[in-house]
Amino acid sequence: MRISMAQLNCHAGNINYNKSIICSAIRRAKDQGADLVAFPELSVTGYPPLGLLHSDDFIEQCSRALIEIAAECSGITAIVGAPEAVWKKLYNTAYVLSEGKIVFTARKAMLQANDIFNEYKYFEQGGNYSVFHFKGKKIALTAGDDLLDVSMFQKPDMIINLAAIPFSCTQAASRTDIFSVRVRAYGVPTVVVNYAGASAELIFDGSSVAIAPDGTVCKKLPPFEEAMLTFDTDELAAGTAACADSNVNHTGLMHDALILGIKDYFRKTGFSEAILGLSGGIDSAVVLCLAAEALGAASVRSLLMPSRYSSAHSIDDSTKLSERLGTRYNIINIEKSFCTIEEGLAPLFTGKAEDATEENIQARIRAVFLMAVSNKSGCMLLNTSNKSEAAVGYGTLYGDMAGSLSVIGDVYKTDVYKLAAYINRDREIIPANIIGKPPSAELRPNQLDSDSLPAYNLLDSILCRYIEQQMPVEEIVRHTGNRETVYRLVKMICSTEYKRYQSPPVLMVSAKASGAGRRIPLAAKLPVAYQKTGRPF
Amino acid sequence: MRISMAQLNCHAGNINYNKSIICSAIRRAKDQGADLVAFPELSVTGYPPLGLLHSDDFIEQCSRALIEIAAECSGITAIVGAPEAVWKKLYNTAYVLSEGKIVFTARKAMLQANDIFNEYKYFEQGGNYSVFHFKGKKIALTAGDDLLDVSMFQKPDMIINLAAIPFSCTQAASRTDIFSVRVRAYGVPTVVVNYAGASAELIFDGSSVAIAPDGTVCKKLPPFEEAMLTFDTDELAAGTAACADSNVNHTGLMHDALILGIKDYFRKTGFSEAILGLSGGIDSAVVLCLAAEALGAASVRSLLMPSRYSSAHSIDDSTKLSERLGTRYNIINIEKSFCTIEEGLAPLFTGKAEDATEENIQARIRAVFLMAVSNKSGCMLLNTSNKSEAAVGYGTLYGDMAGSLSVIGDVYKTDVYKLAAYINRDREIIPANIIGKPPSAELRPNQLDSDSLPAYNLLDSILCRYIEQQMPVEEIVRHTGNRETVYRLVKMICSTEYKRYQSPPVLMVSAKASGAGRRIPLAAKLPVAYQKTGRPF
Repeated sequence: MRISMAQLNCHAGNINYNKSIICSAIRRAKDQGADLVAFPELSVTGYPPLGLLHSDDFIEQCSRALIEIAAECSGITAIVGAPEAVWKKLYNTAYVLSEGKIVFTARKAMLQANDIFNEYKYFEQGGNYSVFHFKGKKIALTAGDDLLDVSMFQKPDMIINLAAIPFSCTQAASRTDIFSVRVRAYGVPTVVVNYAGASAELIFDGSSVAIAPDGTVCKKLPPFEEAMLTFDTDELAAGTAACADSNVNHTGLMHDALILGIKDYFRKTGFSEAILGLSGGIDSAVVLCLAAEALGAASVRSLLMPSRYSSAHSIDDSTKLSERLGTRYNIINIEKSFCTIEEGLAPLFTGKAEDATEENIQARIRAVFLMAVSNKSGCMLLNTSNKSEAAVGYGTLYGDMAGSLSVIGDVYKTDVYKLAAYINRDREIIPANIIGKPPSAELRPNQLDSDSLPAYNLLDSILCRYIEQQMPVEEIVRHTGNRETVYRLVKMICSTEYKRYQSPPVLMVSAKASGAGRRIPLAAKLPVAYQKTGRPF
Repeated sequence: MRISMAQLNCHAGNINYNKSIICSAIRRAKDQGADLVAFPELSVTGYPPLGLLHSDDFIEQCSRALIEIAAECSGITAIVGAPEAVWKKLYNTAYVLSEGKIVFTARKAMLQANDIFNEYKYFEQGGNYSVFHFKGKKIALTAGDDLLDVSMFQKPDMIINLAAIPFSCTQAASRTDIFSVRVRAYGVPTVVVNYAGASAELIFDGSSVAIAPDGTVCKKLPPFEEAMLTFDTDELAAGTAACADSNVNHTGLMHDALILGIKDYFRKTGFSEAILGLSGGIDSAVVLCLAAEALGAASVRSLLMPSRYSSAHSIDDSTKLSERLGTRYNIINIEKSFCTIEEGLAPLFTGKAEDATEENIQARIRAVFLMAVSNKSGCMLLNTSNKSEAAVGYGTLYGDMAGSLSVIGDVYKTDVYKLAAYINRDREIIPANIIGKPPSAELRPNQLDSDSLPAYNLLDSILCRYIEQQMPVEEIVRHTGNRETVYRLVKMICSTEYKRYQSPPVLMVSAKASGAGRRIPLAAKLPVAYQKTGRPF
């Protein structure tokens, strides 16, 4: 039997487009002599469809698309994912389409409740899977996590899994291992078809696999791009032709994931141009490089907005970077606007000392300028906050936290440095001075991030344990030392949830982004209080 | 058997506080001769605990609190809700505590996946309930929706349900009816204990009930306030003493829910003072009145920020309202700031016509002023957007959409008028001119909302069908006529999701708030396109 894995980049909600790329893949598969072609989970709706599933119109349109796709299946069988409405219940279903008809369906049982898409809110749990008979073989059809718990009761000859697995830097390698271990336990050749594409926060990295009964990964599609591969299933049964896995460079993967995330967010929302504020710091420099690579330098512009506290080299470094990339920039000095706003407030602020208020005003004036250019020119504002500062609330709401897409909001500051090094891997693009200077918001004289925060390597090692690994506070103290800093940071994380609540969508590249990835009650009083020794409460 | 219903206002994450109010209620119940006292669902953690449940520290602290609460139970038995960690699994459990010990547990089976709290993300599903024996009776212990599916197999003599039921204007009345119908089917006396309090978006309205086997509601605790009631369960078995249900005034309920929502958000986040921008329109006027009632007039201030487009009466009406309420206000003219920002942008905008950009700049300058006073004075910015304008994206991100809490973001404009009438029910507080004038954002000369939107009664009737009732588009057309308007609005709703994504938390008073309540993919292309006749796609 010849099978095609169709690793497509579907578009959430865009049923007509999805139908058209599915039909075109079916025709290609047929040309390549395939008997069967498999697509990712919910390929008709795109992933994640979210609240669209609550619309009867939408569900009905999916049904009609299924029929049209089935009509394309003459001499070939296709497996696609779509919602299935049965009375008042909705299932996440894998459909087998052949000769104009739906010939078999399998409903997903292990619904997912991840950080973005809570399937339980929309779908009912399906029952146990059953096999379908095809060309003398029994094929077990599964969607998503159902792959992890396939009963061998019905003795399938093969497993096909329709997947929608978001990328995570830390899990990218282990994912294939998990599949291998499961498949070895089943002892049945298995095909997993994933998306390659991004939908707002979620980035799907493709890397679809075909695995032999002994767990050997025989076929692997490329990461981060649409691809199709047709092969004979006998090649899997043999279980010898392990495909070479290229050396994994974590920073390179993160870089490619972010590029895809930017590219697809613009394409799928119908935008082509981006704007961002270029401060002279490493965060905005890295975002500018990523945006220029994703969208083309001619489609990216920036504003340089010095204030009385900006250092001279901030402008020089920023212009140098822009010129190297070939991106357009404008300089708007915010001093006069800052003074005017301060004048307006003077009668209310008499006798009150300067504090963070004045810092925030500068950040917010910059957002007013950026959004004005965004509105006037139809370019999308990119947010340049990193995960470390967002986690502890070191940023200004409606100021530097503004934007329609947070590009590096799930990238720790220490990883931002790695991205900068990766971007400069062949030649210096980001000026060395931007990378070498001590991080500063430049919102008051001689301000440094280290005035308010611990050094970023210590900060990130604490944040990663607290956010990703969800380690108890005292255990973090044991690992990193410095009890006082750990407790201070945990308190900052907890007390600034209200800022992240209003953050732009963040391109997710870790197993646990803050914000959408990790919601804590806004009106909570948390029981974490610093004591010099002993238990945390 | 004497039972106490303890309708408390717990605080999410604040285990020590919850423990203390639970223990104090146990002592009061004992004083009132109760054998048993029942608390709401997850009363130890407060509701919704969200991501706190992922912290081992937090779970461990809950366990210790349970032991301390159990120690309080001498001569009385208490039923509280808390997470239960069993190996690596977590359950939403009702605990029976007596004489220092946990004597029985029941794990919630029907987990909820509502708009704010997705229990599936945190909890495993429990198995079937079992009864516990108490004073010669068999009591079925249930949490949340488990009440709707109680098997009578074990022949319980009574059902106790720990609940956390968010308020909804439209469902407040029907809820008790649903309970009555179920209880009549079971034929067993039933006690439902709910929270009275708010946690950010969620408002719990109390109204705990005790229901006789024939479905008669015999006991009902007051809405929107903490309360405790002790009675003999024989009174339920009798099933005659139906409690009088006061006439339900929907607007009054909504008003009281919003007051509680504001009050608790401030108390639970540790804020005491509020600020808002007072435009002279009805939305900000209503929010000012609600805030003044919830927090006290002395704790609420406003900024009046006229521009070149503000009408004279906007300031007069606003000062009149402030003086009637006794709230503080300041006037800051934004004209000079507006000019300065425009000057800064002039080199970039040469040859470009005025458009919505200039309107947005004004709204954003106002947000800069409001946030500056908020930052300097430690008062919280209240957002004054209503549900109708938020639904269609008629608002400025980082401008009038800013704030830490959206007070009327789940209240349609037509209901805002009803709230205004309710506030004025005894005497005119909101000046008639504010209520009578045609709605306008006053961001360009002679601007009216009706330039961009249909009349609010038509708009709201379409929105309500599309958002709350999730009616197919063509069915909405059949109900409201005017196909073109319906399609235009649906398109506006779909294309402005990115704005609501960054909205402040909204006090929820309907069955389906937009924003958190109804997420559609940000990078979606929706298949709804206007055609003069025929099907929508």
